[in-house]
Amino acid sequence: MPPTPNDAIEIVLRPVGFVRSEVKGPVAPAGDDHLPLTERIQKAREYRRGMRAVICELWIDPDLDGILDGITEFSHIQILYWPHLLPPERRKWIKVHPMGRQDLPLTGIFATRSPARPNPILLSTVRLLAREGNVLRVQGLEAADGSPIVDIKPYSAIRPEAENATFPAWMEQINREMSDDG
Amino acid sequence: MPPTPNDAIEIVLRPVGFVRSEVKGPVAPAGDDHLPLTERIQKAREYRRGMRAVICELWIDPDLDGILDGITEFSHIQILYWPHLLPPERRKWIKVHPMGRQDLPLTGIFATRSPARPNPILLSTVRLLAREGNVLRVQGLEAADGSPIVDIKPYSAIRPEAENATFPAWMEQINREMSDDG
Repeated sequence: MPPTPNDAIEIVLRPVGFVRSEVKGPVAPAGDDHLPLTERIQKAREYRRGMRAVICELWIDPDLDGILDGITEFSHIQILYWPHLLPPERRKWIKVHPMGRQDLPLTGIFATRSPARPNPILLSTVRLLAREGNVLRVQGLEAADGSPIVDIKPYSAIRPEAENATFPAWMEQINREMSDDG
Repeated sequence: MPPTPNDAIEIVLRPVGFVRSEVKGPVAPAGDDHLPLTERIQKAREYRRGMRAVICELWIDPDLDGILDGITEFSHIQILYWPHLLPPERRKWIKVHPMGRQDLPLTGIFATRSPARPNPILLSTVRLLAREGNVLRVQGLEAADGSPIVDIKPYSAIRPEAENATFPAWMEQINREMSDDG
């Protein structure tokens, strides 16, 4: 029997702010299944390249005045946010093909970074460009306009967080296919 | 006026599992204020070294059977967890001295990794040692026994997430002081 002493516990969060972005649709749109794989990969690569360039704003609750003080001394920050456009039934998914690709192995959600997960708190490390009062401008956040922000943390890995990290073949394949040299 | 279209939104999470650890107390105990700074730094360094070595278990809800499949192909995973021993009033804190040290600048919570934050979802990158069914064994998780687990993600940065990242002087100082060479 697993020890789950607080089985019925609920964790209630309140957004600390919202994303303002030109990204309007759901992230990483599916529905390209009819395309040949090479075209899908090409589209995904262009999508990812676009996302890395996109600049958006994080509007932080003015009631939290001061909570950003000191943040501009960091070049990178980590955003925890809520994918509010994710259909709620996807919180019940257990396995997916990474990036919806049938050619990649069916994989447990906790072994992927799919937005469909029991508690869809998404995590992104982004470059901090500027702060104006309670608004941060960042580059590279793949979050749709209006996404509630759960938390902001400074990126703190002065040394690599995970030296000599290893990855499944499917993830190395995706990264190879998505790379600009690819 | 900030655009906060969903000001009253509540995000409700349910733990997907729990931490089983020899770490029983609240994380990074305070109350050493009476000690000389050099002794406090020495204690903190030993504490951090101990935390890097500690091995604990993550018990995942058996109802999520299959959600871990494929995870052992990763050497490192990221744990989002809830610091259930954190006094709730600390969710209202706006600024802290990093690590409770008065000699370091008073800093906005979002520019620190203090567990005291409006939505205390803590994030740790750890080494995955083994999986047995719905139990993961990991090394280096600084979470107290019984902490609810919110999410597990694979560590996916095949390339450095944040190349040429820069940090405030206070964080470089802490890392220097905490290093084993220090």
